[in-house]
Amino acid sequence: MRALVMRPGSLRVEQRPKPQPGPGQVLCRSIVCGICGSDLHLYRHAQYYYDLGLQANVPQALLDQGVVLGHEFVGEIVEYGPQTKASLPIGARVCSIPFIEGELETIPIGSTPYIDGAYAEYFLLSEPLLLAVPDSLSNEAAALTEPLAIGMHAVNRANLHHAPTAVVIGCGPIGLAVIAALKLQGLDNIVAADYSAKRRSLAAELGASTVVDPAETDAFTAIPASQANTAAAIFECTGVNGVLSQCIESAAVGSEIIVAGISHGEDTITPATASAKQLSLYFVMFYGAQEFADAMQALADERINWQPWVTGKVDLDGVEQAFEDLKDPEQHAKILIYPQGIDAA
Amino acid sequence: MRALVMRPGSLRVEQRPKPQPGPGQVLCRSIVCGICGSDLHLYRHAQYYYDLGLQANVPQALLDQGVVLGHEFVGEIVEYGPQTKASLPIGARVCSIPFIEGELETIPIGSTPYIDGAYAEYFLLSEPLLLAVPDSLSNEAAALTEPLAIGMHAVNRANLHHAPTAVVIGCGPIGLAVIAALKLQGLDNIVAADYSAKRRSLAAELGASTVVDPAETDAFTAIPASQANTAAAIFECTGVNGVLSQCIESAAVGSEIIVAGISHGEDTITPATASAKQLSLYFVMFYGAQEFADAMQALADERINWQPWVTGKVDLDGVEQAFEDLKDPEQHAKILIYPQGIDAA
Repeated sequence: MRALVMRPGSLRVEQRPKPQPGPGQVLCRSIVCGICGSDLHLYRHAQYYYDLGLQANVPQALLDQGVVLGHEFVGEIVEYGPQTKASLPIGARVCSIPFIEGELETIPIGSTPYIDGAYAEYFLLSEPLLLAVPDSLSNEAAALTEPLAIGMHAVNRANLHHAPTAVVIGCGPIGLAVIAALKLQGLDNIVAADYSAKRRSLAAELGASTVVDPAETDAFTAIPASQANTAAAIFECTGVNGVLSQCIESAAVGSEIIVAGISHGEDTITPATASAKQLSLYFVMFYGAQEFADAMQALADERINWQPWVTGKVDLDGVEQAFEDLKDPEQHAKILIYPQGIDAA
Repeated sequence: MRALVMRPGSLRVEQRPKPQPGPGQVLCRSIVCGICGSDLHLYRHAQYYYDLGLQANVPQALLDQGVVLGHEFVGEIVEYGPQTKASLPIGARVCSIPFIEGELETIPIGSTPYIDGAYAEYFLLSEPLLLAVPDSLSNEAAALTEPLAIGMHAVNRANLHHAPTAVVIGCGPIGLAVIAALKLQGLDNIVAADYSAKRRSLAAELGASTVVDPAETDAFTAIPASQANTAAAIFECTGVNGVLSQCIESAAVGSEIIVAGISHGEDTITPATASAKQLSLYFVMFYGAQEFADAMQALADERINWQPWVTGKVDLDGVEQAFEDLKDPEQHAKILIYPQGIDAA
C-alpha cells in the first residue's frame, strides 16, 4: 500500500506492506485523516518530544526507520482479525480514539512507531474502541471528531458555572476547537485573540463573541465591563513562551487558566501573583472516550458550525506541501488528507 | 492600651487608644494571638506585597503610620457596639475569620492598616462572624484554628480520592498545617520533606508517615513503591523559588500540585512537562468560613495532635525577639503572643 512515512524533518510516500489485523483488531481503509498540530510538532521537533518523555516507551531507533502519522481519521472496515465479534458490517464507516488495546496498555496510534496511523491507504484499529459514524455525518465532519474532543476536554476541565466569561488566547487548531466547545456549552461571552485576521474570522464563525488582534487590543480589556472583575476561564492555546505569564498577570481573582497549547523549553511565571489571585492552572492533553463520543454526536447533530474550519484537502502526495502551507495562519486552519485520492473519497 | 505597632522593618510597643466598636462590631480583649508567617513576610517585605497588589486597597501612607498585626487570635467579648444583638455573653471567648464586615466588603484584620489586629490588648470583631470557643477548647489550641484552616483549605482543594499519596514539601507553619489536615482526612501515605530535623520531628508528630531530609533523600523517591507511579497530591509549602519546578519534574502523571507557599519574584517552570503529565496546579490562599469552623471543631474534638506545634509563648515585649527566633527552624514552629502578659492568660 502507499503510506506517507515520516522521519524527523522528512516526509515521503513509500510502499509498505498492508497491515495484518491481529487479535481483536480491525483493518480499515483510510477515508480521510486530518493534519494535527502535534503531527507538525513531531515532524519538526521529534527529539524534543523524546526528551520530554512523551515517547518514553518507544525506542528511538524506530523513529529513524520511519513512522506513519495520522490520528484524526475516518476509516472503512475492510477485514476483521481473529478474536473479533464483527459487530459492525464490512464497509461501515468508523472513528475511534487513536489508541490500540495492547496486552498491557493502550498504545497511541500514529504518534509512535508501534502502531502506524492513517496517513496511508490502510491502518489498524481495535474493535472494542470503534464508533460507527452516523449516516448523517459526512466524512469531512467526522474527521473533526478528534480535534473537537481536544477542545471539549479542555472546556470540561474548566468550571464554567463559576466562570461566565471565557478568554481564548490563540485561534489555531486547538483554540478553534476550544471556541467550538465553549459555544456548545452555551457560553455567551467568548473573547478570542489571534494576530491572524483569517483565524480571527474563523474564531467568530465558530462562536467567539468578541475577537481581538493582540497587536492592537489586549484580550482581557475586551471582556464585557460587567464581567471584567469576575473569575474567567482562560484558555492558553498558543504554546508561545511568555503567554502563560501574561494570562496570570491579567487574570481576575479566582480565574482558571487551562493550558492547552504545548510550549517549548522553560517559561517564567510569578507564582505569588497566582497565589494572590488564587488561580488554578490546568495543563490538559488528550480527552476521554466519552468526550470523543460526545464530539462526534455534536457534529452529527449539526451543533457545530464546522465548515469554515476545513480550509484544504490533499492526497498523500500533497502532504509535504500542506505541512509547509500550515505555517501560514492566513492560509489554513485544518487540512484533510485523502489517502485514496481526493476524488476517490 | 498597649499595642505592638509594626512599620516596615520595625516593631515597637506603643500606647494607642482603645478601639471603639462601631455598628455591628464587638470590642474584644486579646487573650492570645499566634505569629503567622505572613506577619513575618509583611514585616520584612511590605513593599513586595504592595507591588503584588495584595494590599491594593490600602493607602501605603497608613503602613508608614504603623499597623497592628495579628489575625490568629482568641478574644474575650468586652463590649458590644451599636446595632448588635449581644448574641454571646460578655466574657465569652471567641474566634473569627480575620475579616470585618465593612460597608462594601470584608476587610482583612491585622494585615492592613484599616483594621488593627490582635497584637494589642484590645481589638474589634464583627458580631455576625463570631464563633464561640467551646469550653473544652484551650486558648492555646483555639489560637491554632486559623493556621489549621489554611491547611484544611489547601487539602480540600486537592482531590484526595484520586490521590492516595500526599507529598508535603516544606514543614514550616503551612506545611505542618497541611500535614495535620491530611491526617484529619485519614490519609495514610504522607511523605514530608524539610531540611530541619526539628521540623521533620514535628511533621511526624502531626501525622506524616514518612519524613525525609532533602539533603539526603528526594521526597518523591520516598513514596511507597506501590504508589510511586500513581497520581499524588503534592503540596508546595516552602515558597522557595525552584521548588515548584522540581515538583513538576518529579510528579507522576495526573498529579495535583497545591501551591500553598508564597514565593518571591519570578520562577521558572517547563510547561510542556506539566502538559505531558496533565498536571493541575492550584495556587491557594486563605480559607472559607466553613473550613474555619471545621478547623475549630477538629481542635475541640482533640482530633489534632496540636501540642508539639506550639513551641513558644511571649508577651508583647517579647515579639520582636520572637520574630528573630522564628528565623531558625530548629528552634520554633508556632509562637503565641499573650498581649495581657503570659501569666495573665
